[in-house]
Amino acid sequence: MNILLAEADEIVDGCLILTDRRAEHIVKVLRADVGDTVRVGVVNGSKGSGVIEAITPKHPRSVRLRIRLQETAHVMPPIDLILALARPIMMRRILSQATALGVGRFYCIHANRVEKSFWEASLLDPDGYGEHLQQGLEQAVDTRMPEVHFFRRFKPFVEDFLPTIDSEYHRKIIAHPDGNQTLGQVMTGVQGRVLLAIGPEGGWVEYEVDKFGDAGFVNCSLGERILKVDTAVVALHARISQLLELEKR
Amino acid sequence: MNILLAEADEIVDGCLILTDRRAEHIVKVLRADVGDTVRVGVVNGSKGSGVIEAITPKHPRSVRLRIRLQETAHVMPPIDLILALARPIMMRRILSQATALGVGRFYCIHANRVEKSFWEASLLDPDGYGEHLQQGLEQAVDTRMPEVHFFRRFKPFVEDFLPTIDSEYHRKIIAHPDGNQTLGQVMTGVQGRVLLAIGPEGGWVEYEVDKFGDAGFVNCSLGERILKVDTAVVALHARISQLLELEKR
Repeated sequence: MNILLAEADEIVDGCLILTDRRAEHIVKVLRADVGDTVRVGVVNGSKGSGVIEAITPKHPRSVRLRIRLQETAHVMPPIDLILALARPIMMRRILSQATALGVGRFYCIHANRVEKSFWEASLLDPDGYGEHLQQGLEQAVDTRMPEVHFFRRFKPFVEDFLPTIDSEYHRKIIAHPDGNQTLGQVMTGVQGRVLLAIGPEGGWVEYEVDKFGDAGFVNCSLGERILKVDTAVVALHARISQLLELEKR
Repeated sequence: MNILLAEADEIVDGCLILTDRRAEHIVKVLRADVGDTVRVGVVNGSKGSGVIEAITPKHPRSVRLRIRLQETAHVMPPIDLILALARPIMMRRILSQATALGVGRFYCIHANRVEKSFWEASLLDPDGYGEHLQQGLEQAVDTRMPEVHFFRRFKPFVEDFLPTIDSEYHRKIIAHPDGNQTLGQVMTGVQGRVLLAIGPEGGWVEYEVDKFGDAGFVNCSLGERILKVDTAVVALHARISQLLELEKR
């Protein structure tokens, strides 16, 4: 945890009182004491610092902080992800790592090779996935919570929903081993937002690749090495970020 | 497992007989049967295919394959990694993911913020880390096993060892949040091999940054987001790979 996150309504008259895992973290992991300062941010708001004013003993532990917020939040990251829903253990890692790297919106969708049982996971509740997004923000010292949207049917997602967000993106990319273009080629000149679609273990089926193509996605390969989905998400995000930075120079 | 790996001496007269987890994998995961073909590679050698000639029932299960090797091995990947030894659970993930991405050599070293106890891990035995390298190769359909070297003392590594490999690299980079250059800047014009040093959780200490600087490493930041070591390894590898590909065009 490199920043302690609080909801806006938890801060009253510049004062934040913690009694949950964050209080434990301050005392046990940071080993902070009265008078020490920790980095604090408001979810979807500003960043700043908190000075510890009081720590009461455990059962229940309570930590009171005096908050000063002076830095504005990051702008929305330039990359949004479409993810074929992965098995929960993989999905947790992806959400947390991608949030640390910076993602504006996650669109988690069904695909032919997504197991139906994945849609029963408790991870799909806001409480389920929220924890992993928060871990990613706490790691990356960010306050902007990504949006997460679920689409249990593939066809309505590509045919009906995608056209409604199409104009937000300068480039839409589908990762596919048979893609005949490289990321370097399709990202040339791109300075706006990017929407990247990453398939399930085993990849997209041909019908899905065609539907993304119809929706204006360019088909892009990462080379001949086959990667696990979680590795592919981080690697593709990093490559696109690098190419966006080069275009900005 | 996207390729079944065997040692060269396991193949006798074009025939490979498996009785271990690979036999189980063929039958239970791939659900392959007599007459089916699976992708086969020889560790540090060629790739090709194996036709299943016989499967005997379990206790013990045995699978006999007729092997044909026609593709040569990949060339050595252009990136080598210096890693401050991480805790075993993290180290396993890094070795397997980085091997999937393609690494020539791993130099695992001590650093100020590496816990002494990490050096007691069974992961440091060839049998310990070998399994994770093999998983990475099996994932990425590669046969070239990375080299792994351990250095339990920081100073002899940078002062005595690094100069002996210096001439192999076109660029040597140390990842550090205070780095005043971007990867895009330091990779401009680089077409040869790259040696990248990634620190422990909490980062390199100033002395270590200085020693790498004395050894000719450029100090490079990935931006203001703080990443976990395993995320950073994949993200930095991906960015450097992308920049090397651009330079080749």
